[in-house]
Amino acid sequence: MPTADSPTTDCSIQRTLDLIGDRWTLLILRDIFRGVRRFSQIQNDLGIAKNLLAYRLNSLVDAEIVTKIPYQDRPVRHEYILTDKGRALSPALVALMRWGDDWCLPGEAPTELYHEACATRVELQPWCTCCNEAVPPSSIRSRPGPGLTSSINTISVGVSP
Amino acid sequence: MPTADSPTTDCSIQRTLDLIGDRWTLLILRDIFRGVRRFSQIQNDLGIAKNLLAYRLNSLVDAEIVTKIPYQDRPVRHEYILTDKGRALSPALVALMRWGDDWCLPGEAPTELYHEACATRVELQPWCTCCNEAVPPSSIRSRPGPGLTSSINTISVGVSP
Repeated sequence: MPTADSPTTDCSIQRTLDLIGDRWTLLILRDIFRGVRRFSQIQNDLGIAKNLLAYRLNSLVDAEIVTKIPYQDRPVRHEYILTDKGRALSPALVALMRWGDDWCLPGEAPTELYHEACATRVELQPWCTCCNEAVPPSSIRSRPGPGLTSSINTISVGVSP
Repeated sequence: MPTADSPTTDCSIQRTLDLIGDRWTLLILRDIFRGVRRFSQIQNDLGIAKNLLAYRLNSLVDAEIVTKIPYQDRPVRHEYILTDKGRALSPALVALMRWGDDWCLPGEAPTELYHEACATRVELQPWCTCCNEAVPPSSIRSRPGPGLTSSINTISVGVSP
């Protein structure tokens, strides 16, 4: 496994996957996003072993992606709530959902996300605020950002190969 | 592990994660997106064991996310190229990268994505084409879509808890 010292440390995708790049963790986050917040509820919903669930929830708490608050005293039981850092994963989960809608299902989408104000289906796509238009993958380019510390990591995700 | 028969089969996120919900697979896709396409190049870049890499690349080929084409004859060697289905993962990878930029790095972004036409940094956010504005997580709601076949899967990813 690459470590924090590996040459790709500068990669934001790798940093992200170090925290949430695990199928169970992403499914747990999906559940918390949709309001399934208690240990037993998540366990029932996913059919995951208790020790695996406990380990992943503790990791999410350690990473400050979720926080746990008690909802009963005897015995103490907790709910898991998204922090701001956790809520900021919303676009990533929406993007994964959209791809599944488009490419993994035989028919139409089982769930639609819509704008509360007007009931229009929400789109998620790269957007240029200057040209005020969606940017297709073939029109996205990458450049070193101000935080680049290594020359080998000019990642160009989004650039059509 | 949930199977195709499990109650959450309708979930597009789960379907997606069944194909790419693995840290190595996502890092392999990141490499192919940025032009690292040959087995030995990917292996060197990620430091992944050959058998693990071969298994994951074959799975991506089986899922029609990448296709392999020979680039030399003796011995036969292949490059791995994204299909349309694979290129459609671009928003998901951009979203994961953006989250890492914002929440996992001590400083500024190591890589910036920009619009080829105007050099403006590309944004990726839920967007309402009716109101022509970005939609914050708290303004996203979910409803059953036309493809819903089970009543328990009204997933509301994107809805602020």
